[in-house]
Amino acid sequence: MPEFRRDPVIGRWIIIDPSRNFKKIMHSQEDEYPKDKSKCPFCPGNESMTRPEILAYSDNPHRHPNSAGWTLRVIPNNKPLLEIEGTLKRRGEGMYDKMDGVGAHEIIIETTNHYQTIADRNEKQYENIITSIIERMKDLRRDSRLEYILSFKNYGISANAVFEHHHSQLIAMPIVPKRVREEITGAENYYKYRERCVFCDIIAQEMSAEARIVQENEDFIALCPYASRYPFETWILPKNHQTDFDSLSYKDIKNLSKISRSIFAKLYNVLDDPSYSVLIHTSPLKEKNMPYYHWHIEIIPKLTKTSGFEWGTGLYANPVLPEEAAKYLRESE
Amino acid sequence: MPEFRRDPVIGRWIIIDPSRNFKKIMHSQEDEYPKDKSKCPFCPGNESMTRPEILAYSDNPHRHPNSAGWTLRVIPNNKPLLEIEGTLKRRGEGMYDKMDGVGAHEIIIETTNHYQTIADRNEKQYENIITSIIERMKDLRRDSRLEYILSFKNYGISANAVFEHHHSQLIAMPIVPKRVREEITGAENYYKYRERCVFCDIIAQEMSAEARIVQENEDFIALCPYASRYPFETWILPKNHQTDFDSLSYKDIKNLSKISRSIFAKLYNVLDDPSYSVLIHTSPLKEKNMPYYHWHIEIIPKLTKTSGFEWGTGLYANPVLPEEAAKYLRESE
Repeated sequence: MPEFRRDPVIGRWIIIDPSRNFKKIMHSQEDEYPKDKSKCPFCPGNESMTRPEILAYSDNPHRHPNSAGWTLRVIPNNKPLLEIEGTLKRRGEGMYDKMDGVGAHEIIIETTNHYQTIADRNEKQYENIITSIIERMKDLRRDSRLEYILSFKNYGISANAVFEHHHSQLIAMPIVPKRVREEITGAENYYKYRERCVFCDIIAQEMSAEARIVQENEDFIALCPYASRYPFETWILPKNHQTDFDSLSYKDIKNLSKISRSIFAKLYNVLDDPSYSVLIHTSPLKEKNMPYYHWHIEIIPKLTKTSGFEWGTGLYANPVLPEEAAKYLRESE
Repeated sequence: MPEFRRDPVIGRWIIIDPSRNFKKIMHSQEDEYPKDKSKCPFCPGNESMTRPEILAYSDNPHRHPNSAGWTLRVIPNNKPLLEIEGTLKRRGEGMYDKMDGVGAHEIIIETTNHYQTIADRNEKQYENIITSIIERMKDLRRDSRLEYILSFKNYGISANAVFEHHHSQLIAMPIVPKRVREEITGAENYYKYRERCVFCDIIAQEMSAEARIVQENEDFIALCPYASRYPFETWILPKNHQTDFDSLSYKDIKNLSKISRSIFAKLYNVLDDPSYSVLIHTSPLKEKNMPYYHWHIEIIPKLTKTSGFEWGTGLYANPVLPEEAAKYLRESE
């Protein structure tokens, strides 16, 4: 059973998961995906290589579960970081705190096509992905042990994706992750002082400055943030104040799919099929409708490498002006 | 001129340094050091390839500066992240904050031998490295624009070291880095509640539990922390409360060199010459002699890769129990 342990100085929870074979991790120097694509557990026809599906979308109403014929499929991770069974058993160990690694770890297989690039994708596929994340969030909300659902994606070798076939992940956990808590605390402090949402203020300032905007539509804006940590870091935010990702309306989903399709195609074209990570920052499960927190998507292309300097300081050095990154992206297809 | 920009939500400063050639960074997919060692700017005989030295140790009292004959050499970084000339010019940009990238960025060439491994090193070399860091910290303290001096080292391809030849770095900056500020705030809260230093308490608990101790001597202890973020993460702490790294006595330096030599040799032997980063966490320049902050060294072998999950959450998953890592290291040469 994995376990959560809390750092007694800064209060950060980490997961210790010794069931992951460390010797194997240590000696795998490979920086390449397995060559034999017929063994991809995410390809249609290989459904038996995964655990039974949690959710699937299909154009065929007569499709049997765990068979081909799907357009999007959600499965439990075969090697989950957290396990769904059990209770948290919060306990002390001298001055330290620990609890069992309870939670959920799911994989969203975004496409049937192993080789599909993000430039080839249509809006309907984005709608499916977004809708499936919302459906899973709504379902997992009912589990009172859980505090947060992180939805993220790693694509490409440099982002350390384990599989080549496009997929997102969803980890539901009994804690609010440190980074999200920091954002909420920072936003709350700003709100106390100004009685405005800091993200709403950022959107207003960016719309007046224009230099860092990549694209916008009726409901969403994509921009390279003022203090970008990484080159070409891009955020997508709802223009109107929204706290919870899973409260999106049908029209929101449509417009988020539109801007997502366009932004990922631009990143593909400008950066030549980069590795990247995508993270959805949304509110904790038990803190809905906050006037000061604003959900958003962070897209981080992995072009440069981080080193001890970043880890040791939390201070990032970015070689690209966000204004220039935004200009490149704005002017691209 | 590089610039600092502050994230308006969480208050993190980042450095934007567009003088670093992004196109070059983006297209360098090389994961190897340059083959031609005669071009190593850190090797004796190549002193003219670096900027003029700031400090050098030599057994030859008649050695001329910037010539061979040194045993350790400190130089300004040829491509500094921060620049020593200028004033900070703190200013606003709408709701955002920025200032000029003023600071120092120095390199400590630790050895004359390009191919020396950390297993081959003697205590005298560690004494030289530690003494040079202290000398440079004491000198840079006089610059009132500076708030923090970060001393760190990246070794090996996986830790993204740019040069193969062993070297440490020192970055003096006009801000206190986020990670250090978090530690200080956490330690201060603990102190308010218990009137004891949290690091002193950790040392006491570890000495009674023993399971996570790698080694100790009269003045120092090396341990794998309870909530290790990374496999084989190892910290070295002074047993008695000390706030500032540069207040080490001659006896402290001797004993820190002893335990450092031993710990790095163990890491080399157990993990087969791993890539790693080393960070010295010490007090901010203007906050000396704090009863609640305790300097320490963090050694992070780079065995696993971090991905979007870690970046997006600040939550780390570690596949190795710290107790097992400590046991491996304790039992090794």
